[in-house]
Amino acid sequence: MAESMKGLHRSHRCTEVSNANIGDTVTVMGWVQKRRNLGSLIFVDLRDRSGLLQIIFDENDIGKDGFEKAGKLRSEFVVAIVGTVEKRSGAVNENLATGDIEIRATELRILSEALTPPFPIEEGSSTKEELRLKYRYLDLRRPDLQKNLILRSKAAVAFRSFLANEGFLEIETPILQKSTPEGARDYLVPSRVHPGNFYALPQSPQLFKQLLMCSGYDRYFQIAKCFRDEDLRADRQPEFTQVDMELSFVDIDDVIDVNERLLAYVFKETMGMDIQIPIQRMTYAEAMDRFGSDKPDTRFGMELKNVSDVVKGCGFSVFTGALENGGSVRGINAEGQGAMPRKKIDALVEFAKGFGAKGLAYLAINEDGTYKSSFAKFMTEEELAELVAAMDGKPGDLLLFAADRNKVVFDVLGNLRIEIARNLNLLSKDQFNFLWVTEFPLLEWSEEQNRFSAMHHPFTMPMDEDLALIDSDPGAVRAKAYDIVLNGTELGGGSVRIYQSDVQEKMFEVLGFTKEDAYDRFGFLLNAFKYGVPPHAGLAFGLDRLIMLMTKEDSIREVIAFPKVKDASCLMTDAPNVVDLKQLEELEIALALKEKATTEQ
Amino acid sequence: MAESMKGLHRSHRCTEVSNANIGDTVTVMGWVQKRRNLGSLIFVDLRDRSGLLQIIFDENDIGKDGFEKAGKLRSEFVVAIVGTVEKRSGAVNENLATGDIEIRATELRILSEALTPPFPIEEGSSTKEELRLKYRYLDLRRPDLQKNLILRSKAAVAFRSFLANEGFLEIETPILQKSTPEGARDYLVPSRVHPGNFYALPQSPQLFKQLLMCSGYDRYFQIAKCFRDEDLRADRQPEFTQVDMELSFVDIDDVIDVNERLLAYVFKETMGMDIQIPIQRMTYAEAMDRFGSDKPDTRFGMELKNVSDVVKGCGFSVFTGALENGGSVRGINAEGQGAMPRKKIDALVEFAKGFGAKGLAYLAINEDGTYKSSFAKFMTEEELAELVAAMDGKPGDLLLFAADRNKVVFDVLGNLRIEIARNLNLLSKDQFNFLWVTEFPLLEWSEEQNRFSAMHHPFTMPMDEDLALIDSDPGAVRAKAYDIVLNGTELGGGSVRIYQSDVQEKMFEVLGFTKEDAYDRFGFLLNAFKYGVPPHAGLAFGLDRLIMLMTKEDSIREVIAFPKVKDASCLMTDAPNVVDLKQLEELEIALALKEKATTEQ
Repeated sequence: MAESMKGLHRSHRCTEVSNANIGDTVTVMGWVQKRRNLGSLIFVDLRDRSGLLQIIFDENDIGKDGFEKAGKLRSEFVVAIVGTVEKRSGAVNENLATGDIEIRATELRILSEALTPPFPIEEGSSTKEELRLKYRYLDLRRPDLQKNLILRSKAAVAFRSFLANEGFLEIETPILQKSTPEGARDYLVPSRVHPGNFYALPQSPQLFKQLLMCSGYDRYFQIAKCFRDEDLRADRQPEFTQVDMELSFVDIDDVIDVNERLLAYVFKETMGMDIQIPIQRMTYAEAMDRFGSDKPDTRFGMELKNVSDVVKGCGFSVFTGALENGGSVRGINAEGQGAMPRKKIDALVEFAKGFGAKGLAYLAINEDGTYKSSFAKFMTEEELAELVAAMDGKPGDLLLFAADRNKVVFDVLGNLRIEIARNLNLLSKDQFNFLWVTEFPLLEWSEEQNRFSAMHHPFTMPMDEDLALIDSDPGAVRAKAYDIVLNGTELGGGSVRIYQSDVQEKMFEVLGFTKEDAYDRFGFLLNAFKYGVPPHAGLAFGLDRLIMLMTKEDSIREVIAFPKVKDASCLMTDAPNVVDLKQLEELEIALALKEKATTEQ
Repeated sequence: MAESMKGLHRSHRCTEVSNANIGDTVTVMGWVQKRRNLGSLIFVDLRDRSGLLQIIFDENDIGKDGFEKAGKLRSEFVVAIVGTVEKRSGAVNENLATGDIEIRATELRILSEALTPPFPIEEGSSTKEELRLKYRYLDLRRPDLQKNLILRSKAAVAFRSFLANEGFLEIETPILQKSTPEGARDYLVPSRVHPGNFYALPQSPQLFKQLLMCSGYDRYFQIAKCFRDEDLRADRQPEFTQVDMELSFVDIDDVIDVNERLLAYVFKETMGMDIQIPIQRMTYAEAMDRFGSDKPDTRFGMELKNVSDVVKGCGFSVFTGALENGGSVRGINAEGQGAMPRKKIDALVEFAKGFGAKGLAYLAINEDGTYKSSFAKFMTEEELAELVAAMDGKPGDLLLFAADRNKVVFDVLGNLRIEIARNLNLLSKDQFNFLWVTEFPLLEWSEEQNRFSAMHHPFTMPMDEDLALIDSDPGAVRAKAYDIVLNGTELGGGSVRIYQSDVQEKMFEVLGFTKEDAYDRFGFLLNAFKYGVPPHAGLAFGLDRLIMLMTKEDSIREVIAFPKVKDASCLMTDAPNVVDLKQLEELEIALALKEKATTEQ
C-alpha cells in the first residue's frame, strides 16, 4: 500500500530542523531508520541524506488510526510526517545534529513500504562486498557512501569553479573515437552504418585536447570518462574519471603553479584543509635513489642507501656479483625492528621475491651490538662495521639489503619500505603528503618489443639540455614530464608536449615508428600541427583515486556510485550480458567463441 | 624552424591589453591573422581566443634581423612578441576591442610556422561543411565557433553552479551498462573478459537516476553523455549531451519551478538575457488543437481552427468524407498571402503530402472579395461565407485546409504553419519563446507492434484523475509528463515517476510485458523499489540543442567541438575504422558482413 503525498510539501530535510523551529509545524519525509515502542509512545528515527531526526507518535496527537499506522512502521519504510517541533522530552542525543529536538507527529503517510534489507543500513557495515554490490541501491543508503559521494560532488564543483575562474574552458571531446592502439587495450564499439568498422572508447582525451590547443582554445579542461580494457587490479575500473587539462604558451612551472593552487582550493573547499604550497619537488632520479619509487610515500623515512661502494670488495658474492653485473647493492634501515622474529623476516624475504629479488640479505643489530644476519659470516668484522655505519645502524635496528640490477633493487626496496611501514602502522590517512616528481626518463626500454617505448606518450617533450643525447643515448634523455604524488599514490601527471615537427619526427624514429605508422595513427594531429601549433602542456588527475584518498577509503569502489568488480562486471545489473542475435546481425558481427579449454589456458 | 619561448612569459591575452597599458612592455602570443607591409613598416594582426591586437614592426625598434623575420610572417604562424603599448598611430578601428592601441614590437619569435590553410580563418565562412569538418582543428579557430564553444562552457558552469546551490549532487553513472533494448538502438561494446557478452552505452541515465532516488540522494544531476545508434537527422548525433536531473519528494510544480529558475539563471549568466518566469503552460491537447504540434512555436500566430462543424453538411466530399471516417477538417489562415502565386501554393500542397496529406484544400480571398479556390465549386456561397467567417478570413488572406484523421491533420497543418512562417521570415532567432507542454498521453498506439507503447517511458506516472481509465480506455489516460519547448524545439522533458508497485504492474500489463520480461530488463530497478522508494520526478535538457538556439545556429554541429556527420563518421579522424584482427580475436567476435547487395537494399 502506497499513500500519496498529495497536498503535502516537504518543508525541511531532517537536519534542517533545529531548535530555532521549536513550536513550528513542519513536514518532513524520509526513510524509517528504526522504530521503538516505549510505553504508550512510539519513537521513530527518520533518515534522509542530511541525517537523522526523532519523531514521536502519541495517540493523543495523531489519533487512533494514525497511531496504529505508526505501529506498523518498519525499517526503510518511506514516510511523510507532519508535526510540531519540540524540545526533546528524553535524554539529549549528543551524537545527532538534531539531538535536542523531536517532532510530535500529527499526520503520518506511508509513501512506500519496504522489505527487510539483506544487511543493515548503517555506518561502517561489515557486510561482504559482493552482497553490498549486488544490492548497491541499498548500500548507497549507508551514511559512509553518502558522505563519499557528497564529497565527490563537492570536489567536482570546486575543480570546475577554480578552473573556470582561471580561464579554462570546459570542452567535451568524443566518446566514440578512432582506435589508435598504443598502451592499454581499447574498448571497441562496432559500427552498424559502416559494417566491419569500429569506434574505440577513449583511453584519455589526449589527442583532442592537443588539437584544441592547436585550435587556439588556450586553456581547456574536462572531467572526462576514460576507458581501458585491462585486467583489473584493486584500484582500477574499466571506466574511470579524469580531471583533464591542457594549456597553451606555458612551460612546466606554469602548469605546476596553477595545479598547486587548484589542489589547495579543492582541499580547502571540500575538506576545509590547508595544503602548503609550493609543494615539494623531487626529480625522478632522486625519488628512485632515496625511495626506490617514482611515487614516493614521504609520510615516513626509511630511505634507501646505496652501499655499493662500501661492499665493493667484500667477501659476500651475492653483493659483489650484483656489482660485477652492473647492478647495485642498497639497503633500508628498519629502525628499532632488530628483534623482529625470524618468521616475520622470512615473510619479508618472500615479499621481496614477489618483486623479482632472488633473496633479501638482512642484518639485525642486537641490543648488545652483536649481529644476527643472513650474510655476516661472509664478511669481516671490519666490513660489517663499515656497512652498519653506512646504514646509520644502531643497536636494535634491522638492516635489509637487495643486490641486483638497479631496476630490481629499486622495486624490491621501494615496495619493502611501504610493506614495513604498513606493518608498523606508520601510514596515517590523516596526513596528506604531496610531492611533484619531475624529470622522468623520456623513454623506457621494452624487453618484450626490443625497442624503446614512450614512458609518458610519444608527444612528450625532451628536456632542452638533453635533446642532444637523443641519438647517442636515448635512454638517458629526460622528459618535461611531471607527476603529482599524494602519500605514495600517483594522483596525476602530465607533460610539456612536442610542438616542433623535427623533434616529433625524431621521437617517432626513436620509437621505431615508420612515418606511415605515425600518420596512420596520429595523422590528424600531425597534420594539424603543420598549420601553426603553440607550445603547450597539460596534466590529468585521477579523480577516483583523489576522492578515495580524501575520504580515507582503501578502494575506489567506495567513491564510485555504481562500480564494477574485478572481472569488469556489475553485480547489480549483471552487465555485461547476452544480447539478441538480431542486434548482432544488424552490426554484421558474429560470436567466435573459443573452446572453453582454450579460454582457460 | 620553431623557436623556443624560453625566457618569455605571456603577460596578456590579445584583448587584455588596453589603453590603460600605454607605455607598458607586454609579451603577447598568438596566431598571425594577417600581415601588411606599409612603406617602411610591417603591421600584423595577432589573434588569440580573446580577439585581435595590432602589432607594428619598425626596423628602428626591432633591428634588422627582427624586421626581416617579421617580413616572413604569414597567416597562422604562431608567434611571441615583446613590445610597448602605444596609442594607435593610424585610424582607430572601432570594430576591435583593442582598436585604439597597438604594440610596437621589440622582439619577435616564430614559435611555429604554418601552411596556408585550405580555407580562411575568419567569421562567417562560406566554406563547404565537409571541408570544414575534415579540417575541424582549423575550423575551430574561426571566431564563430570559438564564441559558440565559449558560450557552451559558460552555460555548463551556470547549470552546475545553480544546481549545486539548489542542493543537487552531481553523481556519475556508468557508461558501460547493461543492454535493455527499448526505444532506440543501443551501441554495444563486446566484453573481452566475458566472451559472448556485451555492454551497452546508455541512451540516458534514466534507471540509474531513479535508483539514486531510491538510495536517498534526494536531488541528483549530471551533465551526461548519451548514445543512440539511430539513422541521423540534421539535429541528431550518435552521442549527445544531456543535463539530467531527478528529485525526490516532489510533484510536477516543484520540477517546473526549479527548472524555470534554472533556465532564467543560465540565460542571464551566459547571455545577459532576462527570461520571464513563470513560463506559459499549455496542455498537450491544447497544443495539438491550436498548433498541430506538441512543441508549438509561439513566436507567431496562424493557429489551427477546427471547422468540422462548419463544413459538416457541405457539398465537398473530401471534407465530409474525412468527418464520416472519424477525422476532422481544420484550417490555418495565412493572413495577407491571398495573392500567393499558384506555383508557391502547389509547393505547399507537395509539402503537405510529405506529411501524409492526400491533398490540401485552399481558398484565397481576393481583394475584391471573390475567391480563388481548389474546392469552392463544390460548396454554396453561403457555406463558403460561413467557412471564411469561421477562419476570420479577410480580403487578401489565404486559407489552407486539411481533412483527414486527426493525427494527419495535425501533422500536416502543424508543419505547414512552420513552413509558411519560415518562408515569410516570421521566425526571428532573437526572440526566445518558452513554453511548457503538459498532460501528455501516457500511451501511444503502435500500429506496427499492434500494442500500446509508453509515450515517455514505462515508469511515467499517470495523472491521478485518469488512473481509473487505465483498463477501460488506456489511450485516454494522461501522464504526469512535461516538455519544455523553445521556439518550436523540444529543449527537454521529463515526468513524475511511478513509485507504487501496483501501478507499475498495471503499466507493464498495458504495455504487454510479461512479468518475466519486465524483470529481465528492469529487475534491478523493480527490486530496488521493494525496499522503500520515495515519490520522485525528473527532467533532462538536450544541451546541444539548447546551445544551438542560444547561439542562433541552425545545426548542433556548430556547438559541438568534434561532431560526426550523418553517417555517424568523423571526417577528421576517419572514425569508425577497421581494427586489427587480433583485437577481434581477443573479443571472440568475428565480422559477418552481408553481401553488398543485401546491405544496399
